Parts: sequence; C-alpha cells; structure tokens
Amino acid sequence: MRIAMLSPISWRTPPRHYGPWESVVSLLTEQLVRMGVDVTLFATADSLTAGKLVSVCERPYSEDTSIDPKVWECLHISEVFERADEFDIIHNHFDFLPLTYSGLTKTPVVTTIHGFSSPAIVPVFKKYNGRAHYVAISEADKSPELDYIATIHHGIDISQFPFNGNAGKYLLFFGRIHPDKGAYEAIEVSKKAGVKLIIAGIIQDEEYFKTRVEPHIDGETVEYIGSVGPDKRAEVLGEAMALLHLINFNEPFGLSMIESMACGCPVIAYGRGSVPEVVKNGESGFIVKDINEAVEAVGEISNLDRGVCRSYVEKHFTVETMAEKYLGVYGKIIGDKDCLGEGANGNVK
Amino acid sequence: MRIAMLSPISWRTPPRHYGPWESVVSLLTEQLVRMGVDVTLFATADSLTAGKLVSVCERPYSEDTSIDPKVWECLHISEVFERADEFDIIHNHFDFLPLTYSGLTKTPVVTTIHGFSSPAIVPVFKKYNGRAHYVAISEADKSPELDYIATIHHGIDISQFPFNGNAGKYLLFFGRIHPDKGAYEAIEVSKKAGVKLIIAGIIQDEEYFKTRVEPHIDGETVEYIGSVGPDKRAEVLGEAMALLHLINFNEPFGLSMIESMACGCPVIAYGRGSVPEVVKNGESGFIVKDINEAVEAVGEISNLDRGVCRSYVEKHFTVETMAEKYLGVYGKIIGDKDCLGEGANGNVK
Repeated sequence: MRIAMLSPISWRTPPRHYGPWESVVSLLTEQLVRMGVDVTLFATADSLTAGKLVSVCERPYSEDTSIDPKVWECLHISEVFERADEFDIIHNHFDFLPLTYSGLTKTPVVTTIHGFSSPAIVPVFKKYNGRAHYVAISEADKSPELDYIATIHHGIDISQFPFNGNAGKYLLFFGRIHPDKGAYEAIEVSKKAGVKLIIAGIIQDEEYFKTRVEPHIDGETVEYIGSVGPDKRAEVLGEAMALLHLINFNEPFGLSMIESMACGCPVIAYGRGSVPEVVKNGESGFIVKDINEAVEAVGEISNLDRGVCRSYVEKHFTVETMAEKYLGVYGKIIGDKDCLGEGANGNVK
Repeated sequence: MRIAMLSPISWRTPPRHYGPWESVVSLLTEQLVRMGVDVTLFATADSLTAGKLVSVCERPYSEDTSIDPKVWECLHISEVFERADEFDIIHNHFDFLPLTYSGLTKTPVVTTIHGFSSPAIVPVFKKYNGRAHYVAISEADKSPELDYIATIHHGIDISQFPFNGNAGKYLLFFGRIHPDKGAYEAIEVSKKAGVKLIIAGIIQDEEYFKTRVEPHIDGETVEYIGSVGPDKRAEVLGEAMALLHLINFNEPFGLSMIESMACGCPVIAYGRGSVPEVVKNGESGFIVKDINEAVEAVGEISNLDRGVCRSYVEKHFTVETMAEKYLGVYGKIIGDKDCLGEGANGNVK
C-alpha cells in the first residue's frame, strides 16, 4: 500500500519543539514505515523520516518569516495532488484546504481533522462530507454536521517516554502559554497546595504571559523553563508529581496528557474536550471541576499508582495502536481487507 | 466556445464602487456575451451578468466580514475546476491560487496577471510557467522570469463615459487614498497651481488619510467627495480640467486614466508603471517628473485638445479591442482559428 502523508508546513515534521499536528504525522509515518508500509511524507525540506520525503517548501513558515504561508501552502498541497496517481491513499493532515483539491483526483483522500480552528471553516468540511473520509481525533471533537469513518486517538512512541515510578516534588504545566491552556490556573493551584510549579512551553500569547504568568515567576515557587524539546521532555514529565491540565477550552486532543501518564505522572485536568476520553478518573489522574477540587486532587495524588498510568497508556495510546487503526481505515477505503496483515509488508498493490 | 470566467470574490462583479479586478472581469464578460460567446461567470452571488452566473460565495468578503476569505476563496476556485469539463477554457483572474489546481484538469487555463502584490507570490507563477498561459496587463508589469502569451491592455465600455469637451475649473484625484496613489502630491500641485482639487476614492490607508490628506480638506480649495460609484463617475471625470495621477509605485495598469481620457479629461502623471503605455505625452496628457513639472503641466493643459483624448481611448482602450484580443488568445490556445469570426457566435464546440 502506497500512502502519501500530507503534513502541515508550519513546523518541521517532526517538530523541533512545538508542533502537535506535525508531531502526530511523524509518529504515524514512522510507525507505518516500521510496519512495512510504503509511505511518502510531504513536509518541509528539513523534515526527518525513514520513509520517502517529498518537499517543495524549504523551511517551516513558523520558523522563517520569509516563507509566505499562503504561497507555500498551495504549492505544497498541489504537489501531492499532482502526483496522486503514485499513491493508493492520500492522508491529509493539512486542515481544509486540501479537500478542495480532492474532487480533482481519483486517489481516495483520508482527512484527519486535528480540530476546528473556527466555525468559519466548517462549510468546507460540509461540502466534501460523504465524498471525503473524515477521521476524528476524539469523540469530543466530532461535529454533528459531519460523517466520520472512524475516531482514532493519537498514540505516542512509548519508548521515548521511560517510566519513572518516583513522584517528584513539583507540579507541572506543560503546553502553550495561552489562556486556553490554563497556566494561570496551574499557578493558583500550586500556590494553594503549597507545591512548586514548573511551567514549560512556548509563549503563544505575550500579553497573557506578561500579565498573568510572569509576575508569579520567582524561580522558587514558580519556575519557567521555556519550551522543552524531545530530549528533555521525558525527564521533565517523569519527575513531576502531577501534570496540571486545567484547560479553558474544548481541546480536541491532549497529547501532553498521554506523554505525562506514559512517564508515570498522573494528570489533574478539567473535564473538557477530550479529557474524559484520555484520563481514567481516579486511576491515571483526577478530573476536577474547579481550582479547589484541583488543590484537593494534589493532596490525594500520592494515592494513585504511577504504574497504572503507564499501563493505561500502553493499552490505549501507543503509536502501534494508532497505526493499526489507520491501516484499518485505509483498508476499508480501498477495499483491501489484507492491509492489516501481509498487506502491510508493502507488497499490496 | 465555452468560457469559464473566474472572478475574485473580494467585491461584487461588477463592483458597486471600488474593485478594479472585478471591474475588468465584468467588462470582458459582458462584451464577450454581446459577441455571442458562451461565458459562465464564477463570482459572488450578488454579481450581475448577461451570461450565466455560478456562485458559491453569497457576498463579497470585503463588504461582509462574516465571510472568511481563505475558506470561500478555495470553495469558489475549486468549484470551477470541479466543473472544468463543461468548458473549453478557464480564464483565471484570481491571482496565483487557481494555478495550483490547474495541473489537475485537462481544460486549458488562461491567467490574466492583474499585478504582483508581492515578490513572494512569484514562485507560484514560476512553477506553472510554460504549462500555464499568462496574459500581462501592460508591458511594464511583465516579470522577466515568466513567459507570456500576450499583453492585453484593459478596455472600457466607452458608452459609459460620455465625452465632455469643456474643461471644468478643478483638478481631480481619482483613486484609492493610499501613499502609492499620490493624493498628497495632488494636493501639493493644486495648491501651487492655485486650482481647486477634488479627491474621489475609498480610504485604504486611514493613517495616511488622517495625517497627509484630511488636514488640507476645506471644501473650497480641496474637497473630498468619498468613493464615486459608476453613476457619478463620468460626470466627475468629464467636468475636470485634468486628472492628477502622480503615483509612487509601478502601477500595473491605470484604469482611471483611460476613463478620464475617454471623458475628454487629460492626464498629468508620473511616468511609472503602465503610464507611458497609457498616456500619449503632449496629446492625451503630460508625463511629468516632479511636482514642479506637474504644476507647469496644469498651466499648459488648455493647449491640449480634449477630443484627442477621447479618440485616443476609442482607438486603443475599448472593451471591444480587449475582448477581441482575448478571443485571439483563447483561439491560439485551443487551436481554433475561427473563434474571432463565426466561432464567436457560440456555435464553436
């Protein structure tokens, strides 16, 4: 089976630091390659893959302002469609724009909807509904106006997240610094609980950082360590007592919660968006309603078995599980029942 | 011959007030329809045409901020490509994005390049160079990196611009209020020449308007009359002594200069961009180098014959001439030598 994997070009695939969509594309691509599938990754030229790399855009536009996003997006997307007959499936991770090219090719297109940035983009998904094949990344993120071929949770390469059975002495905020993600709420909880907070992540909202976060940073009770790349991620997560994920929006999927649990670190989260699908309440973390409940949860966190967090991820959120589910979708679309078995050795078609 | 005419959706086709690309698309479409060509106009749903109208976008995004440009652009563009086999030619007036769909259809695509908004967009035109058919709107706007099938100047429906042989008592600035267009320079010239200036046009740069233009508006020596729609345009142009077109950029094509000359009003312009191709120096206006030369030109303007301005436009810049040249391009592409003659009755193919 020959798969064209269309990644965004906002960041490198895989991203150097931040870039959740590119991260999932990379995880899926590399796992499929390991399983013997013939995958061609369409991504920025600096991307890394064990599959084949095709690129028209030299660098990620979020890292290089000389790259005009609108120009390079359409050149990048059209490249895969102009080469569509080289592939059995085009797997689109690039939001809505590629859908508008999908009516011009016979190669089936699967689109993973990595979240709706705005209701304004829904008309495009509605137009191609029925003709396109949509994969939701959580039940919570499904639009009632669309039909989905499957819901496939993200999975991680668990070998990159070694288990740490010993809870450390700090709470952790790990994500974009933006009101949506609840860095300020994490500060409140850590202060009330009297436990140090480490904040890790890119600053996406400068104003919010300056007014709500920065004034609390003293390096002792609240420490900001910037964006944490893949090399330090497992260490920062594994040594935390708990991850505070007090989000203020319906997050389509919370990858950092899985990464945290894989390292043995339980999650204290508001039950919005994908959280109830990702956190097993009372086992791999606590789903809470407000700041006070979160503070109580910090007090009870030592009652949770960090090994359970790990095994919960091993069972539900590995890249192997994710890749097998996607292979199932590909097979369903091209009518190839065999693609999960021998087909996956690359000899199919 | 069946033509799909792809207009932008920033404004209605034809525009209510401002909208130069949509204006040219409308002029060409209606003239081709009058010549018996089967034209389907892809434009906003409120557009007007004697041909067939196809629209997916209800209203122009520059008039209705609830319309997300990126979403509706791609829905609009993909519509014409998904219906490509209904047409012998797709004529693209929508800048670079449609080019990236053109490789996915067998229907030939002609692209009129209405100017390069930035050097950043050139890579798209370069990618499709040789495969696409580019029409330049002036020799001045040609990129040395691209091949063109023709240069076709814009033409106007001269019946909408009645001749006025009597020079009025005011100078006219007619265009966007933006540093590029030289409203401030027009004020300088009118003050030095001691002749009233009327300013007409949309305010595109608020800061420039407030600091460089508005302080001079007194309703007596400098009057601002806002954006002038098609109903008042000929009156405002025809009663002017001269049009001041002291542009500070290489304008791809100056439609207002033709409209002005058609009404008998000569043009005083800086010789940038398309100006030397549009103004016959010493006959239909004066091409000047600086403010002082422009002031001198105002003093000499009564020496020009307003009838010569009119006949110059009748000879070179009518919509009939423009449409015939485009028919020649269509015929060249589809190898139909007859499309200028009998072919144009709509029975071709």
